[in-house]
Order: sequence, then C-alpha cells, then structure tokens
Amino acid sequence: MLGKKQQLLIDTTQRLLRRDAQPSIRRIFDKTHPADLAAVISHFDNGRRDVLFHLINGVEAQAEVLSEMLHEDAAEFLSHMPIPDVVKLLQSMENDDAADLLARLPEDLSKQVLAAFGRTDAEDLGDLLKYGEDTAGGIMTTDFIALHENLTAQEAIESIRTSKDVDMAFYTYVVNDHRQLVGVLSLRKLVIVQPSTVLKQIMEPNVVSVRLHTDQEDVARAVARYNLLAVPVVNDNNVLEGIVTVDDVIDVIREEATEDILKMAGAGMELVETGNVAKSVKARFPWLLVSCIGELIGAAVISPFIGQLQTHHYLALFMPIIMAMGGNIGTQSATVIVRGLATGYVDPKKMLAVYWREIRVALTLGAAYGLIVGGVSFLFSGGDYVYGMSVATSMVLAMCIAVTVGTLLPIILEKLHVDPAVATGPFVTSAVDVLGLLVYFVVSTGLLTAVGG
Amino acid sequence: MLGKKQQLLIDTTQRLLRRDAQPSIRRIFDKTHPADLAAVISHFDNGRRDVLFHLINGVEAQAEVLSEMLHEDAAEFLSHMPIPDVVKLLQSMENDDAADLLARLPEDLSKQVLAAFGRTDAEDLGDLLKYGEDTAGGIMTTDFIALHENLTAQEAIESIRTSKDVDMAFYTYVVNDHRQLVGVLSLRKLVIVQPSTVLKQIMEPNVVSVRLHTDQEDVARAVARYNLLAVPVVNDNNVLEGIVTVDDVIDVIREEATEDILKMAGAGMELVETGNVAKSVKARFPWLLVSCIGELIGAAVISPFIGQLQTHHYLALFMPIIMAMGGNIGTQSATVIVRGLATGYVDPKKMLAVYWREIRVALTLGAAYGLIVGGVSFLFSGGDYVYGMSVATSMVLAMCIAVTVGTLLPIILEKLHVDPAVATGPFVTSAVDVLGLLVYFVVSTGLLTAVGG
Repeated sequence: MLGKKQQLLIDTTQRLLRRDAQPSIRRIFDKTHPADLAAVISHFDNGRRDVLFHLINGVEAQAEVLSEMLHEDAAEFLSHMPIPDVVKLLQSMENDDAADLLARLPEDLSKQVLAAFGRTDAEDLGDLLKYGEDTAGGIMTTDFIALHENLTAQEAIESIRTSKDVDMAFYTYVVNDHRQLVGVLSLRKLVIVQPSTVLKQIMEPNVVSVRLHTDQEDVARAVARYNLLAVPVVNDNNVLEGIVTVDDVIDVIREEATEDILKMAGAGMELVETGNVAKSVKARFPWLLVSCIGELIGAAVISPFIGQLQTHHYLALFMPIIMAMGGNIGTQSATVIVRGLATGYVDPKKMLAVYWREIRVALTLGAAYGLIVGGVSFLFSGGDYVYGMSVATSMVLAMCIAVTVGTLLPIILEKLHVDPAVATGPFVTSAVDVLGLLVYFVVSTGLLTAVGG
Repeated sequence: MLGKKQQLLIDTTQRLLRRDAQPSIRRIFDKTHPADLAAVISHFDNGRRDVLFHLINGVEAQAEVLSEMLHEDAAEFLSHMPIPDVVKLLQSMENDDAADLLARLPEDLSKQVLAAFGRTDAEDLGDLLKYGEDTAGGIMTTDFIALHENLTAQEAIESIRTSKDVDMAFYTYVVNDHRQLVGVLSLRKLVIVQPSTVLKQIMEPNVVSVRLHTDQEDVARAVARYNLLAVPVVNDNNVLEGIVTVDDVIDVIREEATEDILKMAGAGMELVETGNVAKSVKARFPWLLVSCIGELIGAAVISPFIGQLQTHHYLALFMPIIMAMGGNIGTQSATVIVRGLATGYVDPKKMLAVYWREIRVALTLGAAYGLIVGGVSFLFSGGDYVYGMSVATSMVLAMCIAVTVGTLLPIILEKLHVDPAVATGPFVTSAVDVLGLLVYFVVSTGLLTAVGG
C-alpha cells in the first residue's frame, strides 16, 4: 500500500515535473530514501520514469532505487539502457539483486552484460544464476564477512575495517582452512573482548545454516524460528557460499503468504500487477474446471430427484441456501485447518481431536441455522411442517458434512505431502455442494414419501 | 509446522522420559536451541512440561525457552509456579516478552509479581503494559543502546562494552540532552572510524522512527520497506522510548497474514489452537448470518420464477453450476484485488483499468465455460437448444456479474476505509448467488417465452 509519505512525494513530483523544475526534484530526491524513490518512480509511465531516474544523484543511489523496485519493472527499465550503464548499475548493487535482475533481462542483453563484467564478478553472478529462484542459493548474497578461526579479535576488526562495503555486517562468520563454516560471531562480541583473543575461542560453534538447495520457505522458517538476522548458506561440504539476510526473508514470508492466499482462492499464482489477461485466464481456468466438473457430477447425482420438483417446486427455492451455508462453513473449517497446518497450530497427528472440535462447532451452528432457515421455509410454504423439517434437517446434515470435508481433506493432503492450501478452493466447495444437495433431496423425498406427499 | 529436527527431539525425549533417563535429557537440552526446546516442551502435557522445564539448565535458558513458547502456554505454565521463580524468570527475559507474559497472568498474580520487582524494572514493565497490544509501544522492547551525541567513538565502544547485555545491538541510537532521538549509527561504523570522532559527526541524522501508538502493521511495513533490523519508537516529543526488532516484526507479518486469510474466509479471528468450541461458534456465526440473509433474499427474488419449474423442472439441475462458477470466479477476483491492495500492486485510483482487465478475463472464461456447460445442458435435455442457449448465456452473464462484484466491492470498501478482506467472504458469494440465479431465471424464462415454450 502506498503510504501518505509516498503519495505526497508523488503529488509533489508530478507538480514539479509539469513546471519543468528539475533542480527542485533533484533536491527532494537527494533527501528521500531509496525505497520511497522506487515507489515514486514506479508510479510514472516509462518516459517520465527515465527523466526521474536520471535526477537521482549518482550511480550508487540509482542502483539502490532499482533494487527496491519490482524486479520486473527494474529489468524492463534496464533493458532500454546502454550496456555500459547497465553494467555500472548492476555492479553497484548487492549481488543477489544484480543476479535477479540479470535473470530477467532479455537473454542476448544479459549475455552481453555478463561479458562486460569483471571475471570474478561474472563468476559470482553466474553461480547465483545457477540456483533455483526459490532456493537459498537463489536468494542469497555473496557479500558477507568470513574470517579465519585463527585470527585475533584485533585482526578481525582490522580486516572488517578494510573490507569493501558490506551493508548488513552484523554477524561475522568464522571459517577453517577449507572455507568450511565453523562458527559465528556478533560484531558486538568482537568489540567487547580482549583484542588478542583468538576467534576460535569466542565464536559460537553451533551455527544454524541452510544448504544451497534449501527451499526459501524453509530458510524463512529457520530465520523466524531462531530469530536470526542472517543465515549462512553452505554447500554439501559445509563450505560457506553466501548468506540470506532477514530483509530478504521478510520478502519471502510476504510472497509465500500471498501465494497461499491466492492458492486458497483458486487463483493460482496470479497477480494483478501483470496486467496480462491471458495469464490470468490460464491461472484461473483449471480451478474453474474443477468446479465445473464437480457441479456437473452434482447435476447428474440430483437428476433422479428432480421430478419431485414437478409437484414440490418450492423445494428448489431452498437449494441455494443449503449449498451456500455448507460451502461457507466448509471453507471456514478448511481455512482454519490449512492455516493451522502452515503455522503449526494444528498437529496432523491429532486429526481426530481436531475433527471432534470442528464437528461440535458444526452441530451448534447447524442447529441454530437449521431452526432459522427451517422456520422460514415453514412460513414460506404456508405452514407445511414436512417442508420445514426437510429444510432444517438437511441444513444440519449439510453443515456437518461440509465441516467433515473441510477438516479432513486438508489434513489428508498434508499427510500425502500435497499442499493443503489447494483444498480450500473449488475441491471443498464442489464436494460440499454435491453432498449437501444429495442430502437435501434424499431427506425431503424421504419425508414427503413418509407422509404420503 | 514442526520440522524434522523437532520431531526427532520430541521422539527422543519421549523415549528417555519413559526410561526415566533425566540426565540424558538434560545433556540433550544443553545442546538444543531455545526455540526448539520450546517446541518440544509445548508438545507435552502439563505434568511432563514441568518435569522437562526443570531439566533446562539455568534460569537464563529457561527464560529464553519461555519467551519462545506461545505466550498463552507460557503464561499458563508460569501461573502454577511460586512467585519468586516467576519474578526471576521474567527478570531474565527481554522486556517486551516479560510484559506480554505479565499481561496474560491472572490479575492478582501479576500484581504480586510486579510488587516483587525492583522499582525501575516495575516502572519499565508498567509502561509497556500501558500501550495497546497491536501498537509499536505494545511490541517494543526497552532494551536498547542510546548514546549521547557528544560522545566519541572510543567512549561509545567503552560504554557498549560495559552496558548490560543487549541481545540485538546492531544499531546504536544517538540522543541529545533531552533524550530526543537525533541519529543512528551502526556498530560497524563505530568500529571503522577514528576513535576520537564525535558521534554527531558520523551518525546518520535521517532516522526512520515510529510513534508509540503506531499500529503494528505500519511498524512492520516501515521495517520491510526500509530493510531495517530494528526501528526506534519515540513519544510525541521525539524522546526515544524503545525499539521494535525485526524478529518481532516477522511475527507481526505472519500474524497479520493469518488474520487476513481467516478474515477472507469469514472465520474471523479464530484459531484452532484455542480448542474452544464456543469461541469458534461466535467467530463464525456472523459470517454465516450474512450468507443466510443473502440467500433468503435470493429465495425471495427467484420465487416468482419458480413456477417455471413445474413445466421445466430440468432448469433446477443447472442452478448449482451457475451459482458455483459465479461464486468461484467472483472469489478469485476479490482475492486478487484484496491481496493486491494489501501489497500495493493494485492502485485503488485505477479502478476502471483494473475492472476492464478483470471483465476481459471473465468474458474469456465465461465464453469457454458457457460453451461447455451450455453444450452439456443441450445434451442433457435431449437436444433442447433453447435450454442450451439459456444456460450458456446465463453462464457468461453470471460470471461477468461475479467479477464485477468481486472487483469493485473491495476497491469501494478500501476507499471507505473498511478492511477490504471482509469482501472476499460471504458478501461476494451471496451477492453473486442472488444475481446469478436472477439472471438465470430471467434469461431462461425470456427465451422459453420467446419460443413459446
């Protein structure tokens, strides 16, 4: 969401652009945080983006602003620039951001850019590009401080003092002769010990680390669980390859939350930002297909009963409410369970306990709404108590069935190692619709036949 | 989710407990991270929790484990302990955690504990308890390093060296004579400058800070936007009162994502952890009521058409699929928009552009599914082309209406400063159900009448 500050900046910039007051814009930009500048510039169209970008003072600041933009936007922007400028900008960036942007450039351009890079830089970047986007290797930066275990605190501080700029240097990693990770030290510790102390003696040897191919979600979980500011990434031989910093972890957590939410709604990995109709259609089509097939099966299942409607056509009036109430409470259960599984509140081993809880909720709510809706249908039908009872009974049963599906399906999927988030969408609602309607027609036909209706 | 490591630890602990091998458990616990210990201990029932807790070596480590447990669990656990033990544990904790636990203790106990605290500690905690749980003041810690602007780097390092343990000391805040925040310094900067440099000269004077009453969601946004490790919290006079660290921000982000997800599913603020049926019923009831009222209105709206079913009872067969497809695509749109608003991808000022995009998606998908479902209904009815056309046309229209509601309702709510997340639940689906069915009956009645059916 754009904050008030960004909105104000955008409005001011717009006004100054109209007046062609470039020097004033430049002055404002000098005092603005790169993250805010990124938000401001992204707001404008391509032509004006270009003008504004060049009002940012210095390639360092420009690079920072680019890193803060959506990577798609930044890459699009870079792809219209002369290659030497692109190289300069990427070189001024943190390694992980540079690699992300490089990966998004048109292939021929990215090759030319890599060729123009110095050899070690190109190797570093090439390495980063090798790892999957969603792995520790894909999100790590290779800008970190690693010191040999035999150095003294004094030597360590000296070495930090002369090392090139590393933004997030709150941990110092300690390595052995083979560049293997053996410990970690906070900068604070380094400052408070005797200068002659050897790192090996003061380092914390139990380091939480992740592998190059660790999924980014597990990386985020480790950082969150152990309250880390960065987590070191090692290869299969425990050689330190990079670090993932907490700011990138925050991005991962947000991204994963968005992914979960979209998946739960059956909107796949779609984001409105793309502005791409075809992509959205593609993302949504399969989910709708599930629903479509489910409901067609439903139509087949209830078709034997549909003749009832010739004599009791008012039965049709309450089909939607049976479906909707079942669908809603089923989705509620599924969501609580799916989120509970993701956050650890629900233990898949305690399936029966969880289900017992949910079914009591459904019975309570089913009784309440059964009475309400049953009562209304009784009045609606001009006092037909068989009709009222059919609706009330079906409501209780449909809601219990819905909760059963909504609770058990995600837990079973989790046990089968399928992402349970997919269960909250069309799968649960279609199943609930079909079963709910079936119950409704069986119960009402049964009751009507029993009283000779 | 419990990791493999925690699961292994739980299994081992369980086995050792059964064998009464306390010393072995103690040895394992000594080597385990407090966060993992918290997960292990939380897994056991109250009696065994107590045994295990006392196998943790030292009050410092015990306090850390307690801070890592769910606050409700930790408070429940503390409430059965002798008061001197509670005091000792809380004093060993970070301030913000201690305040959180204190707030969850039974009132008489928390009063006795506060009375047993030293005066300054009690005041600090009392202050923290004053602020709303969801504000910067409520989540900040008062353990931070603040140094006077006139100190030299050398003096600053000396002062950090002798200050009591502050866990997350990566930033040093600089204050003036009135304890007002005037700048910030990284520990690294302090280490790399000349020892005689005065802080005022090397500090960064543009500090991002938040107010005591800033909502925790805005605090999280600031930390995420500016890639901070901690954000200072000031009162209305810019006096530094505390800091919010990034690990707490991660908790906030997860909490808010869960809140959003539950709200979107109409499950309110419910979490399965509570195990409380009454709370769940209370959380779900109002959302189901919305749905119930919506669908009853729907029943009233379609009742004039229901007579049609006496002659054309097969129309009822396709009511569910019209409702379901509309409901699904409507929820998809609403979810994409709600999440887009939350993450900044959707600009509420560009409502028409967003809607135009969504309606093209709906037309495409509507055409596809209209053809499929219309075709099936044509076959189903034994080749009745009027029937097939009714279903196909209604499908396209219902899906377009659904997308319209799903897109515009959240944007309008956002503009009215109502949380748009509520729009993805029963509001959208009920509205879509009613409108979809209305369209279905109007179209089919119209077509049937036109051909004199």
